[in-house]
Amino acid sequence: MSVLVVGSLALDTIETPFGSTKDAVGGSAVFISAAASYFFSPVRIVGIVGGDFPKHALSFLEERNVDLEGLEVIESGKTFRWSGRYHYDLNERDSLSTELNVFEKFDPKIPEKYRKSRWVCLGNIDPTLQRKVLDQIDKPRAVICDTMNYWIERKNKELKQTLKQIDILVLNDSEARLLSREPNLVKAGRVIRSMGPSVVIIKKGEHGALLLTENTVFSAPAYPMENIFDPTGAGDTFAGGFVGWLARTDDLAEENLKRAVIYGSTLASFCVEKFGVEGLKGLTYLQIQDRVRGFRELTRFEED
Amino acid sequence: MSVLVVGSLALDTIETPFGSTKDAVGGSAVFISAAASYFFSPVRIVGIVGGDFPKHALSFLEERNVDLEGLEVIESGKTFRWSGRYHYDLNERDSLSTELNVFEKFDPKIPEKYRKSRWVCLGNIDPTLQRKVLDQIDKPRAVICDTMNYWIERKNKELKQTLKQIDILVLNDSEARLLSREPNLVKAGRVIRSMGPSVVIIKKGEHGALLLTENTVFSAPAYPMENIFDPTGAGDTFAGGFVGWLARTDDLAEENLKRAVIYGSTLASFCVEKFGVEGLKGLTYLQIQDRVRGFRELTRFEED
Repeated sequence: MSVLVVGSLALDTIETPFGSTKDAVGGSAVFISAAASYFFSPVRIVGIVGGDFPKHALSFLEERNVDLEGLEVIESGKTFRWSGRYHYDLNERDSLSTELNVFEKFDPKIPEKYRKSRWVCLGNIDPTLQRKVLDQIDKPRAVICDTMNYWIERKNKELKQTLKQIDILVLNDSEARLLSREPNLVKAGRVIRSMGPSVVIIKKGEHGALLLTENTVFSAPAYPMENIFDPTGAGDTFAGGFVGWLARTDDLAEENLKRAVIYGSTLASFCVEKFGVEGLKGLTYLQIQDRVRGFRELTRFEED
Repeated sequence: MSVLVVGSLALDTIETPFGSTKDAVGGSAVFISAAASYFFSPVRIVGIVGGDFPKHALSFLEERNVDLEGLEVIESGKTFRWSGRYHYDLNERDSLSTELNVFEKFDPKIPEKYRKSRWVCLGNIDPTLQRKVLDQIDKPRAVICDTMNYWIERKNKELKQTLKQIDILVLNDSEARLLSREPNLVKAGRVIRSMGPSVVIIKKGEHGALLLTENTVFSAPAYPMENIFDPTGAGDTFAGGFVGWLARTDDLAEENLKRAVIYGSTLASFCVEKFGVEGLKGLTYLQIQDRVRGFRELTRFEED
């Protein structure tokens, strides 16, 4: 039993209406594995960084029992950098710059001992690389995959190839509309399910998430945060909490998928309270359970 | 016990990606009263129409037991007309034209027998007129009020005067941000509550609605419709179902406000399935209850 995470490790420079930060530790693999680690261990990472990736970030992941054997460190190179600025209501952001650096040459090699990973979570990377990862894995129980508009538009054919090997696709509402060419999200989910994944999760930012399976539509609210500090990584954190919960329970039944969505949403709500991965440090299981209970109260009504 | 509705009666020309319609019966007072009539009678309307307002629309309201004594008919005048075009995903629309016609001179006069109305629902009209209505009413149990960006921007002072006399304000998310000057919706709700209304309901279209009171945040999902035909009137229908349920139960406790939000959302989900008010015709109580149960299933998850 194990969780394999493949994705980016990055240094993010972020401006929000509440402040700014330079070279904060981020990247999909970092958020996913940190979140998943609250429910399951070990989580294994495959990714690439330069010699400038801070030691404290590696220590943080190691303390969370994340296995870094699959992390390639190019001492002479520079880590992937992204910078962006969020709009007033935090629902939109502009990318200001992207420096791929060592990530440009990322060619995921899955260590021998990772090849029997039961749960695979593919962060938002080139769909060709995602498929390359899957080719090296021995019959996983489930593959959870993220993507984005860039790949939908520029590598559509490759993405569709990858989708055939995916069990659960996680994407946001505008990406779902773009991929399916269908404005209605329930129909979009059905179109995307016909491309391969049996389960589609549509993230809607401050409006929560929809889980769409063959028989069910489940609507998870977003936690009503008063202090959203930095939305960066919220989607990856969602995916990490989701896959971590599935791995912990080893259960893909619909009822448990719903719970996994709530655990993913819960971790994401902690993530956005601070810059970068700071919000994912030192959470207790009690804190997490308290917030899950909050999610329940948020939508509960008594029939009369 | 009675419900008084004051608002517009209109003829709407609408284009959606699925078709178009000319001079469909609409207007806030029509949607609100038709929806409320499923839970309570009599519902009383105060509004104004021209001689061109179709008789079948009046018959429809009368069949729903809506009291039309307060409806002013200017035989020589023309009814308020609006036309608009919805975008691809139905979340946005452009107003193409607005002809106020008889509505320009609307000066609501509340018939003597309406003055003791226990529940008052003020559709989205000039806040000065809204206050004029309230001045003619004798201690209602609750006043529910809608507004829009136009009044927030152009009659801000008058709107704030009106808000002091309101119990429950219903508005959409962009209006809530505009009125409160606060991007975070939970905080926006608190700011608006400090302006007068003890309860604020923020409608989020396809993402549902938030109910904000002193102690509670309640998140109602939108029903996952595959066939949204025409969103016109959904917000008014929501308000109508909401006030109708409150009147039926005569109960303003938080638990019942949550139920009222679900009943409002339920009626709105029927409304958007057809053009104009067609979706609000001939519903059975069983159909409504079935969909309320659907709303419950949509967000229910079992803790493990």
